[in-house]
Amino acid sequence: MFKTCLENVRSNVPLIHNITNYVTVNDVANIILACGASPIMADDEAEAADITSVCNGLNINIGTLNHNTIPSMIIAGKKSNELNHPIILDPVGVGASALRNNTANKLLNEIKFDVIRGNISEIKFLSTGIGSGKGVDAGIADTVTEENLDEIIASLKKFSKITGSIIAVTGAIDLVANEKQCYVIRNGRPEMGKITGTGCQLSGMTAAFICANKDNMLEATAASICMMGLAGEIAWSNMNNYDGNSTYRNRIIDAIYNMTGEMLEEGAKYEIR
Amino acid sequence: MFKTCLENVRSNVPLIHNITNYVTVNDVANIILACGASPIMADDEAEAADITSVCNGLNINIGTLNHNTIPSMIIAGKKSNELNHPIILDPVGVGASALRNNTANKLLNEIKFDVIRGNISEIKFLSTGIGSGKGVDAGIADTVTEENLDEIIASLKKFSKITGSIIAVTGAIDLVANEKQCYVIRNGRPEMGKITGTGCQLSGMTAAFICANKDNMLEATAASICMMGLAGEIAWSNMNNYDGNSTYRNRIIDAIYNMTGEMLEEGAKYEIR
Amino acid sequence: MFKTCLENVRSNVPLIHNITNYVTVNDVANIILACGASPIMADDEAEAADITSVCNGLNINIGTLNHNTIPSMIIAGKKSNELNHPIILDPVGVGASALRNNTANKLLNEIKFDVIRGNISEIKFLSTGIGSGKGVDAGIADTVTEENLDEIIASLKKFSKITGSIIAVTGAIDLVANEKQCYVIRNGRPEMGKITGTGCQLSGMTAAFICANKDNMLEATAASICMMGLAGEIAWSNMNNYDGNSTYRNRIIDAIYNMTGEMLEEGAKYEIR
Repeated sequence: MFKTCLENVRSNVPLIHNITNYVTVNDVANIILACGASPIMADDEAEAADITSVCNGLNINIGTLNHNTIPSMIIAGKKSNELNHPIILDPVGVGASALRNNTANKLLNEIKFDVIRGNISEIKFLSTGIGSGKGVDAGIADTVTEENLDEIIASLKKFSKITGSIIAVTGAIDLVANEKQCYVIRNGRPEMGKITGTGCQLSGMTAAFICANKDNMLEATAASICMMGLAGEIAWSNMNNYDGNSTYRNRIIDAIYNMTGEMLEEGAKYEIR
Repeated sequence: MFKTCLENVRSNVPLIHNITNYVTVNDVANIILACGASPIMADDEAEAADITSVCNGLNINIGTLNHNTIPSMIIAGKKSNELNHPIILDPVGVGASALRNNTANKLLNEIKFDVIRGNISEIKFLSTGIGSGKGVDAGIADTVTEENLDEIIASLKKFSKITGSIIAVTGAIDLVANEKQCYVIRNGRPEMGKITGTGCQLSGMTAAFICANKDNMLEATAASICMMGLAGEIAWSNMNNYDGNSTYRNRIIDAIYNMTGEMLEEGAKYEIR
Repeated sequence: MFKTCLENVRSNVPLIHNITNYVTVNDVANIILACGASPIMADDEAEAADITSVCNGLNINIGTLNHNTIPSMIIAGKKSNELNHPIILDPVGVGASALRNNTANKLLNEIKFDVIRGNISEIKFLSTGIGSGKGVDAGIADTVTEENLDEIIASLKKFSKITGSIIAVTGAIDLVANEKQCYVIRNGRPEMGKITGTGCQLSGMTAAFICANKDNMLEATAASICMMGLAGEIAWSNMNNYDGNSTYRNRIIDAIYNMTGEMLEEGAKYEIR
């Protein structure tokens, strides 16, 4: 149950090591606190392994990656694998530069991720593209619609089988797949796209969920994604007529802070295919 | 018309490459989204040219520059010039350190900027100072007042002629000059100075405006600056008695989000000299 | 009087050089503005000394330290000592990695700090631990309670004597000690711990307080810490039922912005031991 997944975050208070971009890092830290977990940000090569070792899980986000943080991502990822800590990858903007493509490829080759979360374009790029034998040649379209849903789900299951990772795609319809099952989630609001970093925030929160629910990561990932969408709906209902995207950002994190297991259970809109 | 300038941003949705400081970067991203455009932040040398190439324009801000980001600014700037993408420079804190002075000088020498936006001290420093033959010896005072207005306008026109850039000075009175004309803008509130980064935000938004109005950059820059000041006025009118600078920051971005072309047209207070 | 300490910040408007983490940097800048001072963030080795020289004081925070910023901290710290500028150290996360431990040790060995502010674990680690002859072997427990209060106060006074720094420990009970006296402060709310960076913000504001009250730094530090706690209480009283940690963050900075000397004087809850 999603309720249990959230309650496990709140009772376990997992400590999440984040190597993430500097654009949305403050919101990532605050949403991790809001859901009941605890964040540490540390990205120097010299401390990446130490910090990961005192944490319960790792969130790698390539949003503003650079030559200093890439080695830290590799070191922290390998150490987390060694310690059996859950790891999530957010391949922000993969496809937009050779540096992002090569880094994503290197990360996928050297680290085993429990979850990979991105938008459909990023996941499509990873699954059809880069180097190695990891590509799948499924024709994933650039928007998830009711029409192409089954086809995309099949591709995600295939990509999950190849990588061994849960694949989460967020957008108008959210999808969370392993090789056998796929949650199809219909929470959220289109206005969430007018806030910078709702995706980064979601990846940080999902790291907390999988750490607190290690034996049930597929459901935990789906619970986290439902919770973000539901928070977007609740926050929107609290908006005044002169509020805009900056206040909406605050209200979403606030809604996560105030969300109970019961609210999540009742508000989650999903099916499993 | 300012209305048209804003509507062009909303219909074209320009993608803006920002190499900016980490202090105000989140607000810059959110204001770019609020006005109807889309932001990308990327500052590693290895991807600067790639990212600029997939964008429509470039915003360079030297607020927390360092030896890693300076080469990226040069690469992205040159590539943007090559691609004929609009570029804005925000010379934050120029005059406060040799590093900032030398970097600003290098940027002005190697890159052609469409707009340079700063406070009067920064623009004065650039126009009277650094190296090369670019300095003008106009006596720009450190505050723009009704008394020295015409003298300052003359200096800005001269500096615009030398650089080939639109010169925007923001403060109690805002000025936007090319070599022939100068918009004198009287929107805004003094309390905006108690928020970190309203200038950085304005530069990001102005990048969006000039990208969506490439044939009319002087008016587009003036429209952006009026819109920021007007948003400051609207936001202030929505403040409660226990609100302060943090809420004011959110309300200004919210006001940009909710601003229509009609509101901008009606609320803009300017003359052309 | 605390009232005077705050009013000195507002009349002197000290300029604070911050070398701090990128997670909470925006909030640090806004709270420095809210209390009446002015922030500059600059962390490149090539400009650290220049920037410090044009400022009135220095705030060093090791939250996301890296090999680029460590030399800048040393340079800025030494220059500040040379210029007799007040300096505060926030040893974020010391104890969590060798890099943080070694850096904190190096900073304490090479720079004279006026104030060291951290949570009890960080201060305990510094005072009992790292290298040099600076460690004190006092048994500081990991939580300050009414029961162990006198014992901890004795340890802090001892650590203050050894370092020559004012030692500030924040938590459920806040302590501000020099070798002779200790302020015991009971302002604040436990929910402040659900916001990222209230500690970082407090260090930034404390830098402003000690710069504006150079002859009275112990009281100024206590005033700053009372003000933060009181702002947390006022902000909490302004929360609506759907507000959470993100709005609470904004309301605390807002409360600092609106705090008068009289409010601080009346709301401060402390004793001196």
